[in-house]
Amino acid sequence: MAQSSQVSSQHVYEAKVYVTLRPSVLDPAGTAVRSGLSHMGYDNISKVRIGKYIELELTAENKAVAQQQLDKMCDQLLANPVIENYRVEVFESVPAGV
Amino acid sequence: MAQSSQVSSQHVYEAKVYVTLRPSVLDPAGTAVRSGLSHMGYDNISKVRIGKYIELELTAENKAVAQQQLDKMCDQLLANPVIENYRVEVFESVPAGV
Repeated sequence: MAQSSQVSSQHVYEAKVYVTLRPSVLDPAGTAVRSGLSHMGYDNISKVRIGKYIELELTAENKAVAQQQLDKMCDQLLANPVIENYRVEVFESVPAGV
Repeated sequence: MAQSSQVSSQHVYEAKVYVTLRPSVLDPAGTAVRSGLSHMGYDNISKVRIGKYIELELTAENKAVAQQQLDKMCDQLLANPVIENYRVEVFESVPAGV
């Protein structure tokens, strides 16, 4: 019963995390895609860089806490800070049917 | 010489392509990441979906042509339309030093 009051103070957030290779790091997958596109006739492409796009749903007390947790998750697991940059966007989730 | 006038009518565009698994398709990598985060103490995560984020630079006559070409590239190579959705954003590139 104490738990239900605790749950009600939590909000649901949706987060979008963009993980990209640092500009100084080579991207062989991107080069392969550019080469593939060139072979298919798209010879107007000068750069291709491939990163990750991660969608998460999480509960937190407020948006700042959610953002802080997501930054930590990126540093620890979602991105490799040595070779990758990341960007996090957090939105409050709108419950379905409202 | 004819080529140089042709080149000058081309514009440079930057594109961002977001490739995500369709909602009905299972995402084992996302499940593994959610499980990993849970083991690290982040037990407030209810969903993780992993997609691709591709940055391209291309030349085209105008934005509509660039958008059309990018849609084709996604259908043919960048995404698998059977299991993935994609979204394309195109911006006119601002030359460095201007």
